[in-house]
Amino acid sequence: MPTAKTADTDIFKRRESEARSYCRSFPTVFTKASGSLMTDEAGRDYIDFLAGCSSLNYGHNDPDMKAALIDHIAADGIAHGLDMYTTQKAAFLNAFERLILKPRGMDYKVMMTGPTGTNAVEAAIKLARKVTGRRNIVAFTNAFHGMTMGSLALTGNSGKREGAGGGSLADVTHMPFENAMDDKDTLEYIEWVLENPSSGMDDPAAFIVEPVQGEGGLNAASKEWLQGIQRLARKHGALFIIDDIQAGIGRTGTYFSTEEFGLDPDMITQAKSFSGMGLPFAALLIKPQHDIWKPAEHNGTFRGNTHAFVTARVALEKFWADDAFQKEVQRKSAILRQRLEQIAALLPGATLKGRGMMRGIDVGSGDLAGRICATCFDNGLIIETSGAHDEVVKVLAALTIPDEIFTKGLDILQDAVRACAGSNQIAAE
Amino acid sequence: MPTAKTADTDIFKRRESEARSYCRSFPTVFTKASGSLMTDEAGRDYIDFLAGCSSLNYGHNDPDMKAALIDHIAADGIAHGLDMYTTQKAAFLNAFERLILKPRGMDYKVMMTGPTGTNAVEAAIKLARKVTGRRNIVAFTNAFHGMTMGSLALTGNSGKREGAGGGSLADVTHMPFENAMDDKDTLEYIEWVLENPSSGMDDPAAFIVEPVQGEGGLNAASKEWLQGIQRLARKHGALFIIDDIQAGIGRTGTYFSTEEFGLDPDMITQAKSFSGMGLPFAALLIKPQHDIWKPAEHNGTFRGNTHAFVTARVALEKFWADDAFQKEVQRKSAILRQRLEQIAALLPGATLKGRGMMRGIDVGSGDLAGRICATCFDNGLIIETSGAHDEVVKVLAALTIPDEIFTKGLDILQDAVRACAGSNQIAAE
Amino acid sequence: MPTAKTADTDIFKRRESEARSYCRSFPTVFTKASGSLMTDEAGRDYIDFLAGCSSLNYGHNDPDMKAALIDHIAADGIAHGLDMYTTQKAAFLNAFERLILKPRGMDYKVMMTGPTGTNAVEAAIKLARKVTGRRNIVAFTNAFHGMTMGSLALTGNSGKREGAGGGSLADVTHMPFENAMDDKDTLEYIEWVLENPSSGMDDPAAFIVEPVQGEGGLNAASKEWLQGIQRLARKHGALFIIDDIQAGIGRTGTYFSTEEFGLDPDMITQAKSFSGMGLPFAALLIKPQHDIWKPAEHNGTFRGNTHAFVTARVALEKFWADDAFQKEVQRKSAILRQRLEQIAALLPGATLKGRGMMRGIDVGSGDLAGRICATCFDNGLIIETSGAHDEVVKVLAALTIPDEIFTKGLDILQDAVRACAGSNQIAAE
Amino acid sequence: MPTAKTADTDIFKRRESEARSYCRSFPTVFTKASGSLMTDEAGRDYIDFLAGCSSLNYGHNDPDMKAALIDHIAADGIAHGLDMYTTQKAAFLNAFERLILKPRGMDYKVMMTGPTGTNAVEAAIKLARKVTGRRNIVAFTNAFHGMTMGSLALTGNSGKREGAGGGSLADVTHMPFENAMDDKDTLEYIEWVLENPSSGMDDPAAFIVEPVQGEGGLNAASKEWLQGIQRLARKHGALFIIDDIQAGIGRTGTYFSTEEFGLDPDMITQAKSFSGMGLPFAALLIKPQHDIWKPAEHNGTFRGNTHAFVTARVALEKFWADDAFQKEVQRKSAILRQRLEQIAALLPGATLKGRGMMRGIDVGSGDLAGRICATCFDNGLIIETSGAHDEVVKVLAALTIPDEIFTKGLDILQDAVRACAGSNQIAAE
Repeated sequence: MPTAKTADTDIFKRRESEARSYCRSFPTVFTKASGSLMTDEAGRDYIDFLAGCSSLNYGHNDPDMKAALIDHIAADGIAHGLDMYTTQKAAFLNAFERLILKPRGMDYKVMMTGPTGTNAVEAAIKLARKVTGRRNIVAFTNAFHGMTMGSLALTGNSGKREGAGGGSLADVTHMPFENAMDDKDTLEYIEWVLENPSSGMDDPAAFIVEPVQGEGGLNAASKEWLQGIQRLARKHGALFIIDDIQAGIGRTGTYFSTEEFGLDPDMITQAKSFSGMGLPFAALLIKPQHDIWKPAEHNGTFRGNTHAFVTARVALEKFWADDAFQKEVQRKSAILRQRLEQIAALLPGATLKGRGMMRGIDVGSGDLAGRICATCFDNGLIIETSGAHDEVVKVLAALTIPDEIFTKGLDILQDAVRACAGSNQIAAE
Repeated sequence: MPTAKTADTDIFKRRESEARSYCRSFPTVFTKASGSLMTDEAGRDYIDFLAGCSSLNYGHNDPDMKAALIDHIAADGIAHGLDMYTTQKAAFLNAFERLILKPRGMDYKVMMTGPTGTNAVEAAIKLARKVTGRRNIVAFTNAFHGMTMGSLALTGNSGKREGAGGGSLADVTHMPFENAMDDKDTLEYIEWVLENPSSGMDDPAAFIVEPVQGEGGLNAASKEWLQGIQRLARKHGALFIIDDIQAGIGRTGTYFSTEEFGLDPDMITQAKSFSGMGLPFAALLIKPQHDIWKPAEHNGTFRGNTHAFVTARVALEKFWADDAFQKEVQRKSAILRQRLEQIAALLPGATLKGRGMMRGIDVGSGDLAGRICATCFDNGLIIETSGAHDEVVKVLAALTIPDEIFTKGLDILQDAVRACAGSNQIAAE
Repeated sequence: MPTAKTADTDIFKRRESEARSYCRSFPTVFTKASGSLMTDEAGRDYIDFLAGCSSLNYGHNDPDMKAALIDHIAADGIAHGLDMYTTQKAAFLNAFERLILKPRGMDYKVMMTGPTGTNAVEAAIKLARKVTGRRNIVAFTNAFHGMTMGSLALTGNSGKREGAGGGSLADVTHMPFENAMDDKDTLEYIEWVLENPSSGMDDPAAFIVEPVQGEGGLNAASKEWLQGIQRLARKHGALFIIDDIQAGIGRTGTYFSTEEFGLDPDMITQAKSFSGMGLPFAALLIKPQHDIWKPAEHNGTFRGNTHAFVTARVALEKFWADDAFQKEVQRKSAILRQRLEQIAALLPGATLKGRGMMRGIDVGSGDLAGRICATCFDNGLIIETSGAHDEVVKVLAALTIPDEIFTKGLDILQDAVRACAGSNQIAAE
Repeated sequence: MPTAKTADTDIFKRRESEARSYCRSFPTVFTKASGSLMTDEAGRDYIDFLAGCSSLNYGHNDPDMKAALIDHIAADGIAHGLDMYTTQKAAFLNAFERLILKPRGMDYKVMMTGPTGTNAVEAAIKLARKVTGRRNIVAFTNAFHGMTMGSLALTGNSGKREGAGGGSLADVTHMPFENAMDDKDTLEYIEWVLENPSSGMDDPAAFIVEPVQGEGGLNAASKEWLQGIQRLARKHGALFIIDDIQAGIGRTGTYFSTEEFGLDPDMITQAKSFSGMGLPFAALLIKPQHDIWKPAEHNGTFRGNTHAFVTARVALEKFWADDAFQKEVQRKSAILRQRLEQIAALLPGATLKGRGMMRGIDVGSGDLAGRICATCFDNGLIIETSGAHDEVVKVLAALTIPDEIFTKGLDILQDAVRACAGSNQIAAE
């Protein structure tokens, strides 16, 4: 049933900017979604292995969040309150403190930045500079931190950087991520640069790192490497910032992606699945001693998002009140790893990437990866690529995905890989 | 009734960053809102003359938007669809084309940037640089365009700029806004700088201007001055960008704040009231010939916000299908001007600022303005200051405010001015 | 006798970079020079009204400097001593202290920067930033401070700035020089920008100003304006830097160009005529309290130039031991002004520019000015243009020029103006 | 004989900036110099193993250069001719073409930049940016290219960089020099960064490299590594710039320091010994196809230095007309290497650094190196340290040094090392 072909996409072509992107990979018009299924106007269902790029860790339209949000709206609950005190913000903060911070022995202030990830990142680097009086930020190869000028300077991708049109992306040093180069440890190199007073690298205000590089190819840093980066940061008077926007909030199996790594970051960014329901919502967690902002020194009209306070609170209460969800995610992660190993075995040279429910297969070429994803879509699976060369087929299923749908999606992926492998003698080059 | 004193704000003090701000002026906990009234936990109602800093032009929780949004959620309508094609985006774009663009003879592509104003501004300046191959952007004194590094470089306020912590705010030239200096025309100066090849100003990629500077003190540019800026931009190969985030969407009496000025901007930013209901939502309108973005060259997880597509469409259909709303706003603007003139007359030296339903009184000192607003709040009116020295008491009532509430709010303001004037012999210095 | 036509300039065309410039205006090959005359290989003498762009204020090859330098070389005096202590440096510093600083009641440390003007300027702005902890430097429209990246950022000329090839020229705000715009006072504007906390101008580390803008069109700042700039600098915690490279060392009639203006600059740059004989030599004078350099924090191989120490000392002793030379320069300045007035009268719309022996005529167009200078050269006078549009014919005769040669040169200029005026009905447009 | 103690250095302490440096290591007042000896006011001779930091490769006051310069001055030869054509510049350029360029099959245009090394470097990076339309320059760890803002951005040393006072040192990526890290080849890393489109490194306009890092610790790059850098530059559309300011002009045994490496750089900088006699003089050699400067697009008052043209020509004719001098330098280089090996053997852990007549000993600590140099000076030898930690004792004798003086100097060094080694159980740590 050639749904996509009949979808009326004229209005988008006529009126939406050429910057639009995912719609090009999934050329149909979606109209509703529930759990791990999206439905288009022709009534066709698609299994969602993209999950809003990890913004829908709890699936689409979780019924409890829906209900709470509908109740809130129906009762004339605040929709937009700037950053005034609201009942809903209080409830969210109380839940965050009780269910997330306290059980983990964490003491952070929550900064309601603008409701996008890039805004949380911008706030983090501005604050790191204020706290340290230094300007240089260390970011990593293949990093993705956002598209506004401050975050874009941290981002590695040259295609994204060219979007700056030549605007200055200064005050950042890019260092090699773990194993960036053929499994060589990069900590030693980074340490050498930091400790050589003639390296040309100015003293850093902060290191900012994604524990798993979502856009950069599902590169997962090890506990030891992240501890090493934190140690170098401490030793050199720099702050240590975890950008947990894509890897956090359960995606790797724990609320924060590095909970089991024994780290103590100075700041942690939150966005994507932070609202629970995919609403725009972001925050920066700040160690109290670094919370030296003056009132409104970083502000924004949509700081906080009262609808998101409501759904985010429900998400915390529903999924993080005990360890059941976490265990379930870990169970599914094991399934995912096992199935991806089987699938990767179909492609000579293909390798597994990622961690937890944030895994994929490096198939060796962006062209092949693209063909696999297109084949999946034809067969009812929404899935995307990642990596510097788009060479990684990335599985970002909802953490709540039912086993049967998960299996069905992985079957579609396996079939697509098998089909494309046949026409692709050499997977990796 | 000392509501504020009994409000439980401990959680905010304990867990929310020091960056929080409006809550400091309005020390109570709000729980619901409707139209032009906000209600706190103690059940006290406040008249809202802040309207989410112009994000709630249609008031809180418009019943039609509420209903449509509840229906959408209840039906498992998409909450988060990245930038895929959705029924809801199509409906919004069709409405925007039919009700806004076509009647005004405008031909723009709509770029769904991240859902915050600063993201739309960042996209605009990045694109202007790409289009022209130039780096320098002309912004104006007292401008406010956002807090991410690209937008912050455009922003005039030194307190905000210090938030950058020393990060580079380069590639921007600030020029004096109209009448910035004692009613002297500044066009002549700007033209001289542009035409002097030894002025030290690099050729600009764009001029970006707020037709009414909302944060900068309600400075309203004239038709002639804006035409002059557009003419200079054209003459010097620069793009002309209207930042209509605060002044647009009816605030000055027409959908775009400069509709009656005969301008033809290359880009226009939209945010704040764009969703109709105060949901995070922003866009950049781009002349088709400048829409040279590559797919995803500027992206963001929350590009578009499907809930906002729903409410924004309702807002367009409800308020902009004919000229009734526009006329109503113009009627209220006249009332506002008249009342503010009376109020200003109570303060020697006070002057009127702004345009349409975006007006205020320059009372000559931030201290006095602050006392007036605090007095208003004690008497049930939410109102804020603006300006480089916070010296302007700013009225940003919802455009839909009923006359009796509007009058009551203005009465509270008048009483507060009278009370504070008594203790303030010299209003302006 | 068409000397220029027969000059063998092949080697230059073959091997010298296209960046070469003055040689294009004066297409002959010079071989020797004495006082105010330069002689080419064909034996033709030219009167020199360019004087090395003010580097030869004492004329070419002053016999006393020559003799001292020959003696020094013959005796194996140090030619290059890095910045070690030398007898010659001591003698120079003693003379500078005794003849220049003490009589004027000035207390400055002398920093031997690299021997070019731009190096002194770079040292000045680096130090100003170190002293204040601020980054922004205020420079002026039409300013010229040099071509290395730090100085180039201060320079106004767009042609020069394009030489940066897009390298970042940040951390500088250009402000209008006195009367830059139709005789309007610009101090008021500058003060307004400084005092408006939302002007977008970051707090300045320093103001750097040429008392007479040599390259920018012989714009001479008044005592009142410079005092105003100094006052604004002091009030706003910025240093006040006089760039006296072209206007200093007698050019305006006193050793420093602002001696009679009651100023107290924090730093003063010296170069061009500082060696007396045209040898590369530059220095930065620094108020002792600002001399916070660490050893070698700004260095350079040719810091100081021992040959220049010798000739510079002779220059000080010969010309500045009493006020005879100063009076003589002032006498000649009066002659120059009078003659230029007569000459300007030949050209409708032409105006006088400059001060002291640094004067010229704004003839209204670069094309006309270029033709006048070319005509002069054909008649044995070396003279150049200045200004944003090369519209000023600039007289920079040696201060030691004998009256008869001075008169002869001015006669050639007058004839050239008359000749060109005939073919140029409208001088100024 | 405690000469230094009686030297009258009051004037320097009173009037010279704290930035002065070498004089602190050599606390006496020099008055004359000849060949490899410097003489102080007390008549004491010092052997010069510093040679103006390689600016005096032909020794002090070469008799032929002296004679030619005296003749030139006596005959009223041009001292300062801006960049006009002069007989002396023609003679120099002809000699440079005939004796340097042609025999080596090189085709370069000569750009007379300001007469300091940093000016040549600034011109090089500006031109590289103009030619490529790119902004980023690759420089290397431990690099030293000068102290003006453009060159300082390339320089690795943090102490020097701090001199910028926070001014922006942007548009540069520092890469590890060969063997920077424990003998690991760094080419592979650099190639990986260049070829990873998500490395965060913007496409480079140029690579600039010192074949032997003079200030950075006498790190000598191999033929293979430099060929690798050139290959990477070519492959990635970047220019390849050799900064030969300290290593060139015979210092390593050939005129250019990389003559025998089969390289074909796009630009080469010249300064330090370029004048032959230590006069300020610098140039940039540019491949003709890259010489796209507009006239005066990079200029400077002291472009060229006519006295230097005279002495530089003599130097070329005297030392580079045949290969005798080159062979002599190579003979002395062998002596130097042999003696330094013997001396290094006195210090456990000490290693040899450098190449040709640009060699030293890494003694493992700046403290020890400093004590060795101080002991040398007490015994009549001028010698300095180098390296990120000042840990290298650096021998930069004149290339013309007579064997007996060379031996005597090396004996003093050997004695000093032996003396200091006794009091320093552990040389390297």
